[in-house]
Amino acid sequence: MTEAVPAKPADDGALAIICGGGTLPFAVADAVTKYGRRVVLFAIRGWADPKRVVDYPHYWAALGQFGAFCRLARREGCQDVVLIGSMMRPAIWQIRPDLKTLRLLPRIFGMFRGGDDYLLKGVAAIFEEHGFRLLGAHAVAPEILMPEGTLGRERPTERDNADIAKGLAFLTAASPFDVGQAVVVADARVLAIEAAEGTDSMLERIAQLRQTGRIASGRGVLVKAAKRNQDRRLDLPSIGPQTVEGAARAGLAGIAVVAGSTVVAEPAQIGAIADRAGLFVLGLREQAVE
Amino acid sequence: MTEAVPAKPADDGALAIICGGGTLPFAVADAVTKYGRRVVLFAIRGWADPKRVVDYPHYWAALGQFGAFCRLARREGCQDVVLIGSMMRPAIWQIRPDLKTLRLLPRIFGMFRGGDDYLLKGVAAIFEEHGFRLLGAHAVAPEILMPEGTLGRERPTERDNADIAKGLAFLTAASPFDVGQAVVVADARVLAIEAAEGTDSMLERIAQLRQTGRIASGRGVLVKAAKRNQDRRLDLPSIGPQTVEGAARAGLAGIAVVAGSTVVAEPAQIGAIADRAGLFVLGLREQAVE
Repeated sequence: MTEAVPAKPADDGALAIICGGGTLPFAVADAVTKYGRRVVLFAIRGWADPKRVVDYPHYWAALGQFGAFCRLARREGCQDVVLIGSMMRPAIWQIRPDLKTLRLLPRIFGMFRGGDDYLLKGVAAIFEEHGFRLLGAHAVAPEILMPEGTLGRERPTERDNADIAKGLAFLTAASPFDVGQAVVVADARVLAIEAAEGTDSMLERIAQLRQTGRIASGRGVLVKAAKRNQDRRLDLPSIGPQTVEGAARAGLAGIAVVAGSTVVAEPAQIGAIADRAGLFVLGLREQAVE
Repeated sequence: MTEAVPAKPADDGALAIICGGGTLPFAVADAVTKYGRRVVLFAIRGWADPKRVVDYPHYWAALGQFGAFCRLARREGCQDVVLIGSMMRPAIWQIRPDLKTLRLLPRIFGMFRGGDDYLLKGVAAIFEEHGFRLLGAHAVAPEILMPEGTLGRERPTERDNADIAKGLAFLTAASPFDVGQAVVVADARVLAIEAAEGTDSMLERIAQLRQTGRIASGRGVLVKAAKRNQDRRLDLPSIGPQTVEGAARAGLAGIAVVAGSTVVAEPAQIGAIADRAGLFVLGLREQAVE
């Protein structure tokens, strides 16, 4: 990551934050506000947390209200847009298209048929054609990026480090296929590979396989890394408290991500949960990975 | 595959067939008997089908009765051994060790900690150290291998063929990691990758993701291929009627495997189920894959 300071100074107008689920949108809003820039939240109904949204200037919108977004964001003087929070690959029936979105629907349906990168690049293009500039959340709030070293006090063992290396090598090999940002490796055995199901579901699978005795390997690690050539404005890998809880249920020894290119929701809480569960949460130095 | 005829002539003594679940062990036993060689089944309790086992000379044994196997197989004059049927990576607690197995247990526990190839190579080594010769089921019964072309009447479309090519490319890239013999690809998007959970469980995942609207891609294909350098005596990819049923529940357009290096249980029944479900089941020419 090269953005050590927020990329946008305060005189660039208000920042539109399109908010999915989880606490990340509010961490971003707080950081940007702290840097002196005004934020306007566009909270997606059914995803964004209503209890937290009310603390900020905000509008509610259903997924697919792109016409409404354009009108309101322009009125608020927002040119820069950040899309943040869990809403990865919603069901198509969750989209409630307004008139503008309806016209874009054939294109959107087409976008849904490719890999994640394909979908997200399509979304970015639509925003840009309408005069907005899509920024990565980490570009306006670098503090949401995973630092080097561990959150919490646990450290990986030598065996864990070997599993981490194998996981990273696998993710690198899988990278050209626009799939697989996460993998679980235990005692050099690849136990699970994430595709459309997402990290939480993959960890749940490991927990089940262990319960039924299908996995006799040691504890193992979850390794997440960005795909090569991934559009980092939209889809950096992320971890949150629920990732650590899922890893604990799966009996893992820890989690390894790439420092500077992984978004972390609530690092303090992650550290506390990790300590309680006896898991390490490690940010790998990016140069050591590439 | 080079074995166009069974590798072992009839005068090499009886063939010991260690039987896991499913119908494959009986297809092998029938073929070998037809070639004029005597078979003795060692049916694994809890896995082998008792209704079918009784039609052949047989012994019952719990998984882990290696001492009993050695004694009985030698008494029956079996030097050649085939291990066939579903028993992939049983839970360690399913092993009921006899005295000889007990002595091997530390080694077996170690074997369980690596990838599948690692486990299976360890099993093969143990048999060979005890004077047996482990053969691939397809070496004694080549008719269990998938032929080129389709079982049933459905054929892949051009779009399916593109998904098959992407799936094969992915499996080739994943191959050095001793994982991932199967993948589901739809409209060029990799939806699921098999690791420790097995093919049936992976197909079930796709069915669920589709039900909840998380997959908007087209029908898609299941692609299975042997790993490079895989020990083909023990772990060729296989498909059976339940694979076709799982693929149908997952909404797939078809299944593609590599002809000559995939084991097929009950090809006629597979063809019938595939026709009923409107799925293709395709054996790809091996040269076209490598």
